[in-house]
Amino acid sequence: MAMTGVLRPGHAQIRVMDMDEAIHHYRDVLGLIEAGTDKQGRVYLRAWDERDHHSLILRKADRAGIDFFAFKVANAETLKKLDSDLRAYGVKTEKIPAGELLETGERIRFEIASGHQIELYAEKAKIFAPHQLLNPEAWSPQQDKGIAPLRLDHCLLYGPDIEKVQKLFEEVLGFFLVEHIEIEPGNDLAIWLSTSTKAHDIAFVRHPEPGKLHHISFLLDSWEKVLRAADIMSVSRVSIDIGPTRHGVTRGTTIYAFDPSGNRFETFSGGNYGYPDWEPIKWTMDEVGAAVFYHDRKLNEAFLSVVS
Amino acid sequence: MAMTGVLRPGHAQIRVMDMDEAIHHYRDVLGLIEAGTDKQGRVYLRAWDERDHHSLILRKADRAGIDFFAFKVANAETLKKLDSDLRAYGVKTEKIPAGELLETGERIRFEIASGHQIELYAEKAKIFAPHQLLNPEAWSPQQDKGIAPLRLDHCLLYGPDIEKVQKLFEEVLGFFLVEHIEIEPGNDLAIWLSTSTKAHDIAFVRHPEPGKLHHISFLLDSWEKVLRAADIMSVSRVSIDIGPTRHGVTRGTTIYAFDPSGNRFETFSGGNYGYPDWEPIKWTMDEVGAAVFYHDRKLNEAFLSVVS
Amino acid sequence: MAMTGVLRPGHAQIRVMDMDEAIHHYRDVLGLIEAGTDKQGRVYLRAWDERDHHSLILRKADRAGIDFFAFKVANAETLKKLDSDLRAYGVKTEKIPAGELLETGERIRFEIASGHQIELYAEKAKIFAPHQLLNPEAWSPQQDKGIAPLRLDHCLLYGPDIEKVQKLFEEVLGFFLVEHIEIEPGNDLAIWLSTSTKAHDIAFVRHPEPGKLHHISFLLDSWEKVLRAADIMSVSRVSIDIGPTRHGVTRGTTIYAFDPSGNRFETFSGGNYGYPDWEPIKWTMDEVGAAVFYHDRKLNEAFLSVVS
Amino acid sequence: MAMTGVLRPGHAQIRVMDMDEAIHHYRDVLGLIEAGTDKQGRVYLRAWDERDHHSLILRKADRAGIDFFAFKVANAETLKKLDSDLRAYGVKTEKIPAGELLETGERIRFEIASGHQIELYAEKAKIFAPHQLLNPEAWSPQQDKGIAPLRLDHCLLYGPDIEKVQKLFEEVLGFFLVEHIEIEPGNDLAIWLSTSTKAHDIAFVRHPEPGKLHHISFLLDSWEKVLRAADIMSVSRVSIDIGPTRHGVTRGTTIYAFDPSGNRFETFSGGNYGYPDWEPIKWTMDEVGAAVFYHDRKLNEAFLSVVS
Repeated sequence: MAMTGVLRPGHAQIRVMDMDEAIHHYRDVLGLIEAGTDKQGRVYLRAWDERDHHSLILRKADRAGIDFFAFKVANAETLKKLDSDLRAYGVKTEKIPAGELLETGERIRFEIASGHQIELYAEKAKIFAPHQLLNPEAWSPQQDKGIAPLRLDHCLLYGPDIEKVQKLFEEVLGFFLVEHIEIEPGNDLAIWLSTSTKAHDIAFVRHPEPGKLHHISFLLDSWEKVLRAADIMSVSRVSIDIGPTRHGVTRGTTIYAFDPSGNRFETFSGGNYGYPDWEPIKWTMDEVGAAVFYHDRKLNEAFLSVVS
Repeated sequence: MAMTGVLRPGHAQIRVMDMDEAIHHYRDVLGLIEAGTDKQGRVYLRAWDERDHHSLILRKADRAGIDFFAFKVANAETLKKLDSDLRAYGVKTEKIPAGELLETGERIRFEIASGHQIELYAEKAKIFAPHQLLNPEAWSPQQDKGIAPLRLDHCLLYGPDIEKVQKLFEEVLGFFLVEHIEIEPGNDLAIWLSTSTKAHDIAFVRHPEPGKLHHISFLLDSWEKVLRAADIMSVSRVSIDIGPTRHGVTRGTTIYAFDPSGNRFETFSGGNYGYPDWEPIKWTMDEVGAAVFYHDRKLNEAFLSVVS
Repeated sequence: MAMTGVLRPGHAQIRVMDMDEAIHHYRDVLGLIEAGTDKQGRVYLRAWDERDHHSLILRKADRAGIDFFAFKVANAETLKKLDSDLRAYGVKTEKIPAGELLETGERIRFEIASGHQIELYAEKAKIFAPHQLLNPEAWSPQQDKGIAPLRLDHCLLYGPDIEKVQKLFEEVLGFFLVEHIEIEPGNDLAIWLSTSTKAHDIAFVRHPEPGKLHHISFLLDSWEKVLRAADIMSVSRVSIDIGPTRHGVTRGTTIYAFDPSGNRFETFSGGNYGYPDWEPIKWTMDEVGAAVFYHDRKLNEAFLSVVS
Repeated sequence: MAMTGVLRPGHAQIRVMDMDEAIHHYRDVLGLIEAGTDKQGRVYLRAWDERDHHSLILRKADRAGIDFFAFKVANAETLKKLDSDLRAYGVKTEKIPAGELLETGERIRFEIASGHQIELYAEKAKIFAPHQLLNPEAWSPQQDKGIAPLRLDHCLLYGPDIEKVQKLFEEVLGFFLVEHIEIEPGNDLAIWLSTSTKAHDIAFVRHPEPGKLHHISFLLDSWEKVLRAADIMSVSRVSIDIGPTRHGVTRGTTIYAFDPSGNRFETFSGGNYGYPDWEPIKWTMDEVGAAVFYHDRKLNEAFLSVVS
């Protein structure tokens, strides 16, 4: 098989401080579809073009941030093998039983060197409606409800020891490095990793505090939809960090903004794609500004300092 | 590894009846970069965002059509294994020695049931310039020379026995079915196959004559670039078959047009993506019009009849 | 004053054969705002970015077509002067009393040589909401309800003696010719006339039958909105005549489609602008295809024959 | 006539400190066409879609800024009448003889209360090529040379007494107010004035120093072209002030950036249109941020302070 092992980002569980505000933000402004609420009160959402039950889980807590980020793997056999590979590599894994998340099978959870909880799972209920699989229409009003991203695309996490994280993702999970910002040879400020032909399925920035979230990212169709996202954010008084603009890294167009709890999210479009036989693109510190914000060619103050 | 085996379309060799006209078309109008000419007089080209030496080879002949379509595989070991797997499956393979195509390693060639020649190879010279791998710029004038697609994306081939083709691509080459048009259960008019997260890396339409080409397809950045492509085609008196419009299948936006020899090519943008754990989208014959041309919801006369 | 006299298209009254179907089409699919119904049962609509009470009036009748097309003039004094100028020019004018159309002042109606009823008026109720005039937002959900054009933009009418029509519009009403298609010197197939910096506020095609409607046209924001319009038409099973494509004349992008009664309408975007001191652009009959449909460079069968 | 009197912005003469750098910027980066050089060494340029000989004049000087901004009027008779009207209004006018600017007829120059030199003229050589007036193509390579705006669109000037400026433009020159930012009733911070259906042909911000330039503005086709402009600015190391973003005022999308001498210029697209019978849109000081930069909803530091 050409697409094997770890397939794609599956879900992120993030912490929000006011659930009503969070639901308003993610459902009404961002335009995600509410998929359910579990006994713990966690709220599940997905984007309109996703086919699995949910991709975002909101948990009420007293501080913002990310609980865990999960990847869908090809099948149960793959999950078992990756669990075994992780243990053989020296990673302690934990089994979360099926059903702990709504409509989701058993998950393998493990902590990586940057201090983040990562999960793998093989099963989640498909929710793609029959009419979407049989003679589907190319447009529906759902595509215009709120900002209306197509999918959860990736996340950018901040923490220490990202060279160890990269090694694990490459050697055990089958990811490859697409782009990186080099402080000096062998010492990266940031790494973008892919398990597919996407420009990134997950990314990391070196940061002293472990387990921090820079942003979760949602994919839009076009640069015009990025403009519409910015307009809807302004109408909705969502706090925009920066954008619309373009990243040098991945060449994607982007807006960074904050949810009501202070979690940064991104709405982005376009950008590069990658293949494992390609040499990674390298950025050096003298061009770190252009790497992150291509038009301004300088970092804004928040980029390196504001995380949740 | 998550991306393994067959990675992507690598090159198409097509037949043209007047080489000067063909070069004008593919280099000056479409905007591909001329990469070289070999001793046989074949002309090599690539798109501006590709990283391998070439993706299109023009061969002078007395009729239009496609000689072969090739896929890049992960590495030499993969090539050897796939050769062995093909033979074990009963497919006769032929080794084309390294260097027969400029800057290209050994190729494994085989004929599939639809009558087309398919190739696999592991090595081709990388041409991505150093400045493209180190602090690259997001824009260069090259992106505005002619229609300027990013890459050769896929091809659509016409021939018999496409169910056998599908079986081979799935069982030996690791592709998966993304969408199909069903005449009746078990009998498809058309199949779209992916070896990645692209909506298709190759597609087939059932057709009595073997070995025919419907089109080779080039990827554009946006719907606005599709408009620009149509404008440039009109200025350049390129014969447009249909478009700008949208496909129902893959949801991509598209123009079909003809090169001076009568080979159809496509400039397309956007569209779905796919994963191997997703159920294929099915189209039925009563909606075949919308499947192919979403706005008109009917086939044009040329779609099923004009091939090269 | 730099903008004086006749300012802009104000309203079109068109005939529909089934009012419920027509309302569904113009309100739900096209996305116009319903503004009222009068005692005769006529239904009034406007586009979301218009500031006057209505721009489209639907009248139930047993055949499709246009009753009249009206222009807003600068003020009551201008109306009086233009009425007098028209009479001096030999045109018979009729006064329609204020209130005959909802929220509309007195109208001056006259027939032109092509057999169409044209109206001028100075007063119509402003409906722009206070919040739209004070610190307005750049986006509202109204902009995504249906196809959602910004305004009624112009109409294209078919009839005889268009050289007389042109003379009247230029000499009495202050329009200027922006583009024309010439059959032979002094004998035009089609004329595009402007009273502003728009590429056209009204256009005519020479046609033996008087008083016919080719299309009324609605303005969209962008080429991407033209694509969205085509998608919504397909979902809604609106019959598309042609498009998305580009006109050579005016360089605008366009879709022609039909309402349920068979009245053609256009959703278009972009295009040229004009000034009265510019020489008109001329198209000759050998390029009439490119003039009308720039990408195909040929007329479709319906263009010259299907009118209502 | 419906379009009478003052028709449109005709030219701006700006001061640059290094002519070679300025030519590189305006010709190679912005993509204007060089139209000529006069005996004084002034360099003339125009945009690809303009029909008059030039719209921008560069004059070498030891400080940046604007010498004068000129409007094309309908004809010689209009010019004479406006000169007489200005004098009757108490404005001192000066006649600049034909030929003082290349290919340009006599100009009437006068100073307005904000300290700026404004000019009117009736004649300038038309340069639109015959092939652009006869069966023109909708696309040419010229449209992709540099940023490639369609035209000089308007300017924003800073100076005192803008209420007097508004009165003059309205009462003598026939402009109308489209939008304004009100400090308190009767005291505006900024005014946007139109002589056509454009959202603005000229605009003013109240500022203690007379005769200052905030920016001259060039029109682009689309939001995607605004992105391309930002990319080209980044590649070319043009200093971007802000953008891509949207203005609340006029709803246009925009980038502000600086030429090598420090003159701000704008590349913008879209936005509202206006008519003289419409009530102006009012912005209040509590929303001045959204008025100027709709997404950020706050002014950047440079907006009120950096002028040339």
